[in-house]
Amino acid sequence: MENLTGQNMYRLVSELFPINRSITGNGTRKTLSFLSQILPEMNIFEIPSGTKVFDWIVPDEWNVNEAWIKDEEGKKIIDFSHNNLHLMGYSTPIKKTLCLEELQNHLFSLPDQPNAIPYITAYYNKGDRWGFCLKDNDRKQLRHGNYDVYIDSVLTPGHLTYGEVVLPGKEDREVLISTYICHPSMANNELSGPVVAISILDWLKKQKERKYTYRAVFIPETIGSLVYLDKHFKHLKEKLDAGFVLTCIGDNNSYSMLESRYGKTLADKVAKHVLKYHFPNFNTYSFLERGSDERQYCAPGFDLPVCSLMRTKYSCYPEYHTSLDNLDFISPEGLYGGFCVVQKCIMLLEKNHTYKTKILGEPQLGKRGLYPTISTKATNQNVRRMMNLIAYSDGTKDLIDIAETIGENCLDLIELAEKLVNFDILDILQR
Amino acid sequence: MENLTGQNMYRLVSELFPINRSITGNGTRKTLSFLSQILPEMNIFEIPSGTKVFDWIVPDEWNVNEAWIKDEEGKKIIDFSHNNLHLMGYSTPIKKTLCLEELQNHLFSLPDQPNAIPYITAYYNKGDRWGFCLKDNDRKQLRHGNYDVYIDSVLTPGHLTYGEVVLPGKEDREVLISTYICHPSMANNELSGPVVAISILDWLKKQKERKYTYRAVFIPETIGSLVYLDKHFKHLKEKLDAGFVLTCIGDNNSYSMLESRYGKTLADKVAKHVLKYHFPNFNTYSFLERGSDERQYCAPGFDLPVCSLMRTKYSCYPEYHTSLDNLDFISPEGLYGGFCVVQKCIMLLEKNHTYKTKILGEPQLGKRGLYPTISTKATNQNVRRMMNLIAYSDGTKDLIDIAETIGENCLDLIELAEKLVNFDILDILQR
Amino acid sequence: MENLTGQNMYRLVSELFPINRSITGNGTRKTLSFLSQILPEMNIFEIPSGTKVFDWIVPDEWNVNEAWIKDEEGKKIIDFSHNNLHLMGYSTPIKKTLCLEELQNHLFSLPDQPNAIPYITAYYNKGDRWGFCLKDNDRKQLRHGNYDVYIDSVLTPGHLTYGEVVLPGKEDREVLISTYICHPSMANNELSGPVVAISILDWLKKQKERKYTYRAVFIPETIGSLVYLDKHFKHLKEKLDAGFVLTCIGDNNSYSMLESRYGKTLADKVAKHVLKYHFPNFNTYSFLERGSDERQYCAPGFDLPVCSLMRTKYSCYPEYHTSLDNLDFISPEGLYGGFCVVQKCIMLLEKNHTYKTKILGEPQLGKRGLYPTISTKATNQNVRRMMNLIAYSDGTKDLIDIAETIGENCLDLIELAEKLVNFDILDILQR
Repeated sequence: MENLTGQNMYRLVSELFPINRSITGNGTRKTLSFLSQILPEMNIFEIPSGTKVFDWIVPDEWNVNEAWIKDEEGKKIIDFSHNNLHLMGYSTPIKKTLCLEELQNHLFSLPDQPNAIPYITAYYNKGDRWGFCLKDNDRKQLRHGNYDVYIDSVLTPGHLTYGEVVLPGKEDREVLISTYICHPSMANNELSGPVVAISILDWLKKQKERKYTYRAVFIPETIGSLVYLDKHFKHLKEKLDAGFVLTCIGDNNSYSMLESRYGKTLADKVAKHVLKYHFPNFNTYSFLERGSDERQYCAPGFDLPVCSLMRTKYSCYPEYHTSLDNLDFISPEGLYGGFCVVQKCIMLLEKNHTYKTKILGEPQLGKRGLYPTISTKATNQNVRRMMNLIAYSDGTKDLIDIAETIGENCLDLIELAEKLVNFDILDILQR
Repeated sequence: MENLTGQNMYRLVSELFPINRSITGNGTRKTLSFLSQILPEMNIFEIPSGTKVFDWIVPDEWNVNEAWIKDEEGKKIIDFSHNNLHLMGYSTPIKKTLCLEELQNHLFSLPDQPNAIPYITAYYNKGDRWGFCLKDNDRKQLRHGNYDVYIDSVLTPGHLTYGEVVLPGKEDREVLISTYICHPSMANNELSGPVVAISILDWLKKQKERKYTYRAVFIPETIGSLVYLDKHFKHLKEKLDAGFVLTCIGDNNSYSMLESRYGKTLADKVAKHVLKYHFPNFNTYSFLERGSDERQYCAPGFDLPVCSLMRTKYSCYPEYHTSLDNLDFISPEGLYGGFCVVQKCIMLLEKNHTYKTKILGEPQLGKRGLYPTISTKATNQNVRRMMNLIAYSDGTKDLIDIAETIGENCLDLIELAEKLVNFDILDILQR
Repeated sequence: MENLTGQNMYRLVSELFPINRSITGNGTRKTLSFLSQILPEMNIFEIPSGTKVFDWIVPDEWNVNEAWIKDEEGKKIIDFSHNNLHLMGYSTPIKKTLCLEELQNHLFSLPDQPNAIPYITAYYNKGDRWGFCLKDNDRKQLRHGNYDVYIDSVLTPGHLTYGEVVLPGKEDREVLISTYICHPSMANNELSGPVVAISILDWLKKQKERKYTYRAVFIPETIGSLVYLDKHFKHLKEKLDAGFVLTCIGDNNSYSMLESRYGKTLADKVAKHVLKYHFPNFNTYSFLERGSDERQYCAPGFDLPVCSLMRTKYSCYPEYHTSLDNLDFISPEGLYGGFCVVQKCIMLLEKNHTYKTKILGEPQLGKRGLYPTISTKATNQNVRRMMNLIAYSDGTKDLIDIAETIGENCLDLIELAEKLVNFDILDILQR
């Protein structure tokens, strides 16, 4: 990426928007190929249909050439080439003439949102199944008569495709970024996630130094994270300190996080601290309201330290999973705000050491020029912050814990803690 | 019992109501004999007066033939045969003429409740002591003059009598039901307790299968539970999972529970969960407000997992311990409601396993027909409940813990959990 | 002391008030000498300047003979002999004529409190530094022109002086009282502290029996506690059960305590319990608001069980660290109230055993005359308190824990607990 701006992030979303993604198929490949041009560190993997991953099986690959419905006059009243949401995901091929009554069983619309095309899929359906989605207002215009239905789709053994980026750090401890690339033309859910993720990786690779090794995955939701866990769970269980699922992170509204299964991991702690000090009105959702890949990462037995970072959570905005979740629903500012939250979480993780004072009793700050030499009525706020930081650097708390204890934004303590290490007052405990 | 209805329960209370019970004596025997006709599984035990039980001694047995006060005209102004509350419990025999002033020292009434005969006892009094209880309004009518006092009671070495029912289950882990049979003619405190207990036992013995072994005791309060603990404490400490003291459980008002000493036993957890989901306005009383046999079961050193189940707690209704706690104060509905709460607690205990998922990652519910094959905007509430149940079946929580975590009524989860076991998704952990 | 009255305490403060104390020097010596006449058990120690204590060095000793500023007419416009707050603490000697503009750099006043002389020090300043403090109203009267400044002070290697009292008890477990004697003429901060401390010691030495050994230190703040910890930390870490810093404890306003670093020591528990039951409107300050010697006692690595007892906390009253913290700001009643809180804390510590019932099940209180022999509707409040005390005497809680659990003032339980020990119902667990 040239410049990490909201405008550039928005441009990336716009370019990826028209592609027809699904959990498998060429749309996903095209998306990953596009992203790997921006970040050549990305490796793309193909997993054959039929591969068993835990309780699941990688499904057949789905690709669509053409799909439409014509009325009796031969006019295309629904056309996949106009909006890929029109076709139900994983629809099987068909070429048939039906009367309106028969057709209705294969149509999906939203009476409550009559101008939205709903997003519907049937990934793991075994038998024949096909459907079209349309605006309820358009559906109401349909007249009695016969309709030609044509779906030229292919659902055959193929592959599931995903991308992986690993940026090594000084240590082999890892941070995971997980986002998904399996939705057709919708902007907040899902393109905000991959674009914020690629931007974070771009920023990370330009850093002089990284403590953590960063691992990012661009996967189809659910089956993709299971595929990835199938290959990497043992490694992740051993190495992962924190992970974040990025989803719905480009709109202009609230910020939110969704907790890991018990809400007590380092990822939860970092996310809550950052949001509390930067966006105090943020929403915390419990794992009971989960809906993305944290469902797999945090499942019993896996229990990886992963939470989700979002702006407006999926299911919590009416445009969600409809054609209204489009390029108007997100913005450059919205994407950049999402980027900044992830960036702050990472900055915190990079510097979140456990500190221990090297001095018994309060250090004499004055002789080091760290304390005003004249004592008056009021203690300076900066001095008090420094003394509180030292007082709780007892080797039992990491910097975020200390920040929470002394009521400070941890990001404001990092520089101070480093200064105190240089002054030989604090020590960094090795894990 | 023929039919487990509130009407039948109320009829039992009515038949037991006139008997003059005390902590020992023939009234208690008659009561237990009546109950053992309903439930032949009941064994009746007799413990000799003078038996040492922990810090206490089984008192002499008290029986009353006749007791009255006559005025100068020879008219019986108080007569035990009209209401057994008229005679103070454990009154020693007397035949004497006294003037009103002398008599007053032996009379008990309630100025604040002038139409109630109070219930007074002197169980563990060593010397001579006798007394009569009457309505304050009647007391005010007494005229100066002499009164003949006659008490034909017997207080001599005899026995303390109690009943015990054990219904064996598949396992030797036990649930205890404890209720008391030592109060004369009062309905909520106490006959609601024994009648709800006998009804629960009747229901339990008709069940095809019981996981738990059920042990029920019908004892005089305090000395009876100590007698029972003296014989069975070691066994109970080893086998008891949960126990409930049933008292004041037949009126029409609130539901309540009184916690064990630290409020953290399985009995507390079950009682609170059931009441929270079925009678959310229930009252929780701490052990500091105790007053029945949980005083013994939960005493330091015993610390059995026992709490109390009640409707309106003893001491919390003005009719308590007076002649106003009569057959009008309780009702068929009140008794049946009490029965239902105990029943629900038992149903929960029977099914309260610790579950653990057998599948790493989320199970593929769709292939088992447990998940809608078309994914739309909203997740079905039943599907979400099922997925939450699986997500917290991590082997660390019993079903009640899971229910509390996912905000569901545990009774609604039982069938679902069993279905998931049958689908080979969940496993029941053996203790 | 003759009589432990507020009047006598106030008189002591008044006599100590004029002395020019600092962290070293003759004012401190004079103060300790005065206190040791009241309490001959006090030993006075001298630590040489230059002694290294942890991160600090005992500073040179400061003494002042004379200090003033004269105007062009030779009139003393500021004179140390009128109020020792006029001279900045640790001012170096000077004899010089300056114009008003030059002088202003050495003057300190409080625009917001124009009638208060501020208290300013520069203890650990290495270079030359001097200053005068005055009322802002007086400062505004200064006219242009030259001023003769004269400070005849001595800052040379000498000693730091402190006092220590040890009153041995039956046990070698210790309670620490720490107070400071390093401020010039201010009453609440600081003379209330030493005078309450000396009164407590006087009361303690007159007690027939002490369980605890009491150790009291009268030290210059910060450097004094570090000096003391340097000599005694190992002993204190091994022996100290609780300690209290006494400061600002003679005014008429609120009561307050400031917690130890994590707020969970026995000292915190005692202080909070006493204040909660005697002064329920008391303020609790966290360690984040610390400002006296608990900064050293509770520093990481030391972590002694020490909290602070105060009336209005330092920094929380406008008179603090000014000439308005004078003899009018405190009172006999204020001092005596402070004394009483410390006394109650000590009385509680002396009797705060861990009790365990010797009887399984409830004890039969009636046979010991501890229970009414006639049972009526209401249980007597004293009986209930006794039964609750027994019920929670399970060997896991000390008397304060029990008091908190059963909602009683622990001081009301002491006599009752001792009675129950005499009745062979409770046992005192040895540590």
